[in-house]
Amino acid sequence: MSHSYYEYRFCFGSNPCRVVIEEEFPAINTIFAALSSSTRTLLVCDTNTLRFAQRVGELPAVILESGETAKRWASVEKILRGAYEAGLGRDGLFIGIGGGVVCDLTAFAASVYMRGASLCLIPTTLLAMADASLGGKTGFDLFDIKNLAGTFYPAALVYMPLESLHSLPEREWRSGMAELIKTSVLDEDELMFSRIALSGAADTDSAFLISRAVEIKGRIVEEDPQETGERRALLNLGHTFGHALETSAGLGRLSHGEAVAWGMVRSCELGRALGITPPERAQAIIDVINSQGYETRAPHPLMGDSALFMRALEGDKKKRGGGMVFVTPAERGARLVDPSGRGDSFITLIESLVNGAYSR
Amino acid sequence: MSHSYYEYRFCFGSNPCRVVIEEEFPAINTIFAALSSSTRTLLVCDTNTLRFAQRVGELPAVILESGETAKRWASVEKILRGAYEAGLGRDGLFIGIGGGVVCDLTAFAASVYMRGASLCLIPTTLLAMADASLGGKTGFDLFDIKNLAGTFYPAALVYMPLESLHSLPEREWRSGMAELIKTSVLDEDELMFSRIALSGAADTDSAFLISRAVEIKGRIVEEDPQETGERRALLNLGHTFGHALETSAGLGRLSHGEAVAWGMVRSCELGRALGITPPERAQAIIDVINSQGYETRAPHPLMGDSALFMRALEGDKKKRGGGMVFVTPAERGARLVDPSGRGDSFITLIESLVNGAYSR
Repeated sequence: MSHSYYEYRFCFGSNPCRVVIEEEFPAINTIFAALSSSTRTLLVCDTNTLRFAQRVGELPAVILESGETAKRWASVEKILRGAYEAGLGRDGLFIGIGGGVVCDLTAFAASVYMRGASLCLIPTTLLAMADASLGGKTGFDLFDIKNLAGTFYPAALVYMPLESLHSLPEREWRSGMAELIKTSVLDEDELMFSRIALSGAADTDSAFLISRAVEIKGRIVEEDPQETGERRALLNLGHTFGHALETSAGLGRLSHGEAVAWGMVRSCELGRALGITPPERAQAIIDVINSQGYETRAPHPLMGDSALFMRALEGDKKKRGGGMVFVTPAERGARLVDPSGRGDSFITLIESLVNGAYSR
Repeated sequence: MSHSYYEYRFCFGSNPCRVVIEEEFPAINTIFAALSSSTRTLLVCDTNTLRFAQRVGELPAVILESGETAKRWASVEKILRGAYEAGLGRDGLFIGIGGGVVCDLTAFAASVYMRGASLCLIPTTLLAMADASLGGKTGFDLFDIKNLAGTFYPAALVYMPLESLHSLPEREWRSGMAELIKTSVLDEDELMFSRIALSGAADTDSAFLISRAVEIKGRIVEEDPQETGERRALLNLGHTFGHALETSAGLGRLSHGEAVAWGMVRSCELGRALGITPPERAQAIIDVINSQGYETRAPHPLMGDSALFMRALEGDKKKRGGGMVFVTPAERGARLVDPSGRGDSFITLIESLVNGAYSR
């Protein structure tokens, strides 16, 4: 067995979560050892990650289609059926091997199977390692709304095999990098951000970036596991703008990371306009984002008209229970901006930022 | 507004739960006052309880078919769609009005809607008041397995309007009474059991019986909210035998309470055979059950052959993650019996009890 690069132990609510960052895929016995238990197991993967699943072991498996369109109830039902047919009990183990979609679906299925079975996630994309596999958000899309159904259900073990990143397509890599840049902005020690800014994200050791992202996100989620307070909401930096862009461009036309990168630039501009983000920090963040080749111009070429964008923003607001929330970088870390009480001028400001009509 | 008969406050894990036992149905403002919040609301009922839902208020509503066959994903999806169309956000409120099926479905839907919305349950049957509405077990049937999918998600408010019991059919009443008798056996103070034994269950004040059941079950669930330990498993008294009888008779041929009542008699016999239940206590419990007119003979006339029954018992064992568990009455309260290590003679004993072939 190879030596782990990094290892973390978190506690999300009452749920312990162990994260291992390694070079290679774990065999099933390595997983059992890390969980201190062995039991009936179901592997879940998609057509892209089947070859990785076979590395874990000869075990009952459910193979999903790949891509966001698989993120629906029919896939959850397929996983639950696979688990039942493989004879898993309440103490059974679900292992999800893949990107964000496979991780979210497997985690949701495990969370409802006999009211909660054991869960191990093996993220195989940079995005899933940097974000989706950690922190317990599970879900699937319903009525064309992303993650309309879901639960909070952290994996007991998240095993990140860096070798899966060697074959990651360029666009997938960039999508994950946006989340890493986002997390680096939240890093109050600025260790992660300065490493990316100095060497350029693509040249920075991915094991270091991922481990630092795990540590920062893990600590934030520990403080606010179910996003009831403000703490966890900071992880939405760039996401309010980004989600609205994804919706107004048409779901699937932009990768999640591309939308978030664009949203972070808007968040920097918003923070600067409100006097929250110092101009030199805003510029440093925008420079890092641009160095990765993201489309960051306003309006975004795929955005459609701004009325459509503003409607998508309203939809996001509704989903969050009435409150539209923006996160902007601060002197260090980031801060929540609550638009309520700021009146119509705030909406006008948002619209002008999105249109590129705002001038400093 | 009328005066509450009883009111309880529990904390299940980190979730506070308030229980109000009242004569009348609450209007929506009474519910908002009890929750100290008002928000977008969806009512969920079935064709039998629609008239009760109208008492709560003129609000968006989802009306399900009545009966156990409604307990499936299509109903959950219908509730989620209703919530989305009614504009509920993460802070939206689901109110389930009905028996166990409506309560379980509404609670499941609330638990997954945007990863968890607010929940109020208004049980309208004795069974749902005595058992299903309290303690956070939610779920629906999948692949013909009862509650294969579910979550633990306690309602913030459970409002029990006794007036709904006035029109309850005899068979429904008997089904709930079995759970009340079960809870009375778990009552270490014997207050509830002695009241039923002295006056006959049907003559005992239902407000008293329900309140006592709420108090006893609530305390047990507080100690073990997710049934990870032994404490909550005590609530399964009569259920291991009962579930196997329901399955071997064919789902729907017996009411849940009829099966549990028969199972409790078998549990008394098992406890007596193992020297756990004192003979006079076993007899007192059996007398109370028989006084309610349940079919308690072994073999049960609808049971089918005992091989079928034993297979159903095995299925239940698989579901619980390897361990078949029986609960038997003890000198006071009840005790878990773990058959592992007891060998084949234990299985022979179970089979002879079920067949009526066991002689003391």
